Amino acid sequence: MLNEFFLAIESRPDGERLPLNSVLENLAFNENGLVPVITQDAVSREVLMMAWMNIDAISETLATGRMTYWSRSRSQLWRKGETSGHVQRLKTMRVDCDGDALLCDVEQEGAACHTGRPGCFYLKVDAEQKSVFIEGDSQ
Amino acid sequence: MLNEFFLAIESRPDGERLPLNSVLENLAFNENGLVPVITQDAVSREVLMMAWMNIDAISETLATGRMTYWSRSRSQLWRKGETSGHVQRLKTMRVDCDGDALLCDVEQEGAACHTGRPGCFYLKVDAEQKSVFIEGDSQ
Repeated sequence: MLNEFFLAIESRPDGERLPLNSVLENLAFNENGLVPVITQDAVSREVLMMAWMNIDAISETLATGRMTYWSRSRSQLWRKGETSGHVQRLKTMRVDCDGDALLCDVEQEGAACHTGRPGCFYLKVDAEQKSVFIEGDSQ
Repeated sequence: MLNEFFLAIESRPDGERLPLNSVLENLAFNENGLVPVITQDAVSREVLMMAWMNIDAISETLATGRMTYWSRSRSQLWRKGETSGHVQRLKTMRVDCDGDALLCDVEQEGAACHTGRPGCFYLKVDAEQKSVFIEGDSQ
């Protein structure tokens, strides 16, 4: 979606710096104040999961270095691994070109998926056989 | 979010197959009939972009093998690369544990980002310096 702030950044040269606050303030949060977050394993580069953050979750993640999402089902901050021990340590956070998605590289402790599988994307589409098969090792 | 269909799949053994149609019908489309899609380069494993698909975009992507999204700004199917030539050939499509996100491995022709950069996540957060810097090579 068109976002004037991010549109103005497009032509800026590599290496240029912008104030963090201004970037976060201009993120394209949805009507619930959330932005989608892609979480990738910094070592294996497997995409582990997709979840959501509000501005408080982003701030806490950056301040603590531990991934904190917004739980849409529980309507509260979700400090990943708080009960399971499967924490995610933030290595790098990136914002996309139109400010409507985040990409976080993490060090994953244990399983990322609540099912105990390494990652959440364990359902693989086989379009030719018109089926989806369960692939525990994810990728 | 809780999704009875995907909840029932969780305990199924690796290798088990499910009908594609039933999985697609039970995806957790949002109020606009869309589901977020993460697009990853099959070779470099860079996360190139995040966009959205409706059921028609998913069907067309699977039928043609070329990534087709739903453009929220233009309210129409967006056949990636139709004007730029920067097409994405689908290698693998995956669905996550609660059916509310897709992950697609692709072969990317040219740049994935409309700015001409390889990927869309070229804004890197430097939390210590409270800044975001522009990193053209993405990752």
